[in-house]
Amino acid sequence: MSDLGGEFGLIARHFTRPARGGRVVLGVGDDCALVQPDAGQQLAISSDMLVEGRHFLATVPPERLGHKALAVNLSDLAACGAEPLACTLALALPRIDDEFLAGLAQGLWALADAHGMALVGGDTTAGPLNICITVFGQVPPGQALLRSGARPGDELWVSGTLGDARLALEAFRGRVSVAALGADFDRVRLAMELPQPRVALGLALRGVASSAIDLSDGLAGDLGHVLQRSAVGATVDADALPRSAVLAAQPLAMQLQCLLAGGDDYELLFTAPPGRRDAVLAAARQAGVPVSRCGRIDVAPGLRIEDGHGQPVDGQWRGFDHFSA
Amino acid sequence: MSDLGGEFGLIARHFTRPARGGRVVLGVGDDCALVQPDAGQQLAISSDMLVEGRHFLATVPPERLGHKALAVNLSDLAACGAEPLACTLALALPRIDDEFLAGLAQGLWALADAHGMALVGGDTTAGPLNICITVFGQVPPGQALLRSGARPGDELWVSGTLGDARLALEAFRGRVSVAALGADFDRVRLAMELPQPRVALGLALRGVASSAIDLSDGLAGDLGHVLQRSAVGATVDADALPRSAVLAAQPLAMQLQCLLAGGDDYELLFTAPPGRRDAVLAAARQAGVPVSRCGRIDVAPGLRIEDGHGQPVDGQWRGFDHFSA
Repeated sequence: MSDLGGEFGLIARHFTRPARGGRVVLGVGDDCALVQPDAGQQLAISSDMLVEGRHFLATVPPERLGHKALAVNLSDLAACGAEPLACTLALALPRIDDEFLAGLAQGLWALADAHGMALVGGDTTAGPLNICITVFGQVPPGQALLRSGARPGDELWVSGTLGDARLALEAFRGRVSVAALGADFDRVRLAMELPQPRVALGLALRGVASSAIDLSDGLAGDLGHVLQRSAVGATVDADALPRSAVLAAQPLAMQLQCLLAGGDDYELLFTAPPGRRDAVLAAARQAGVPVSRCGRIDVAPGLRIEDGHGQPVDGQWRGFDHFSA
Repeated sequence: MSDLGGEFGLIARHFTRPARGGRVVLGVGDDCALVQPDAGQQLAISSDMLVEGRHFLATVPPERLGHKALAVNLSDLAACGAEPLACTLALALPRIDDEFLAGLAQGLWALADAHGMALVGGDTTAGPLNICITVFGQVPPGQALLRSGARPGDELWVSGTLGDARLALEAFRGRVSVAALGADFDRVRLAMELPQPRVALGLALRGVASSAIDLSDGLAGDLGHVLQRSAVGATVDADALPRSAVLAAQPLAMQLQCLLAGGDDYELLFTAPPGRRDAVLAAARQAGVPVSRCGRIDVAPGLRIEDGHGQPVDGQWRGFDHFSA
């Protein structure tokens, strides 16, 4: 279809491959893609739109951008405990840039392949750079991890480490010295540009976690969603929040900013009854992802942040809001 | 969640309603939506991205924009013979404009309701105006209408009338006089801004049509996709292409431009063996949509456009390409 001009040629060149996996009946190239979920499974669906300057910087290599655009969506499937099936990609591009597209496709395919996921369709148009991916996963009825399941007494857990992505952003913004970070700058930049969605952990936490959410807007804001949907409160032990050695070397105020209102972590925040502590740790081992206990769910509404001695930590920890941050 | 700022408030205010329909297990508000398709059905998926100045003009009322953004996606489900289930909406907005959002939501909900479809999730961010909708439908295995099924000898059919949307665009561009169109301008503008996706016709054509596509980029270009995927050719009778009285009053060259390379028709172009002519007409009656026979599928590759006397119609009828049109 390349005789039909740029739009169709673009899709064909970079984003069409034979559909992989038995569940994809028909991939790119018709009006719709056709996917056959396993019998009786529920479909988990999520959609994220990435805009330059808001969700990524112009400095990001296209491979990493392709990775991240899919990763933030996979992170939503992970938070539901859903098994990835397929995704669609809609792209608005200011111009046809073959090198950019090749890189974008490469990053996206690599992550899709790592999760056995097919790219089944999409759209390409001229316009200010915009990447919109919708993902589809499957989960047995009743087993999805929801934001609404946290109960008083549950323990609060988080995967991986938090705050490095925000630290990298602060370095790009000039609020943290890149020179002072030295070689560590590349490390925190990876956290920002190549987040690893915790799909395996989400699957392993089915039947173990009472609630889950992925951390995209910062712990304080995202935990707020869980508290609101579960009609509970929480106390977070800020000293117990897992952080890299790089972040731990920053002033405490910067650490707290990055840990609590960081954004772009794409780790899982989840709750489980104290009696399931061993099951949580087993799930984490199975998924190969470290997890840390960092607080508890309370009857009293609201979010309290304390240090390791039970003293309140001052500060306003608003969620990372893409309109105001 | 309105205390968390604009982004979350936006979604909640305009785009959250109780999920409708038994197939939606969980709607907006968690990491993923959960949808339960009927047992054994295949999932039909399509995604379209709309950009201002490319797919709609700044003059379009927001209600109509909301309608059209969903309609172009529903049209893809229609072309597959799929039954609409649910959709997601991702929005990039240059600013928070309550009136615009209220209108957009109203137009979108009205069309979604007309098709028993739930809005199950999405995303909102700051950025140049961009509307990305992904739709999910279901279709029994083996019954989807595909582009690849056209066979030599099949007859070519099209629903409704073609070209009015392009005529309206030409009027907006000043190439056709709005004054000369008079009251008819509002009529062709409706075709451009409020296309009616042919979902009922697509469902009725299951087991009748041998192939189908929806006309979004103009008949010549879209038919080209069918020919390519089916490895056949076609002859179109340009005189038989259905057109409104308004378009029929235009000079022939403008008529042909609008009919063959119009874009934005959102009618169905489909093929069926001559022996299924009665079944096609019965499907059209059932769906309440007029259909016209307008050509045939040939063994010889390529697309031939003829007039009613079998004489070739000159011209280059490229598909409407959003990068070059």
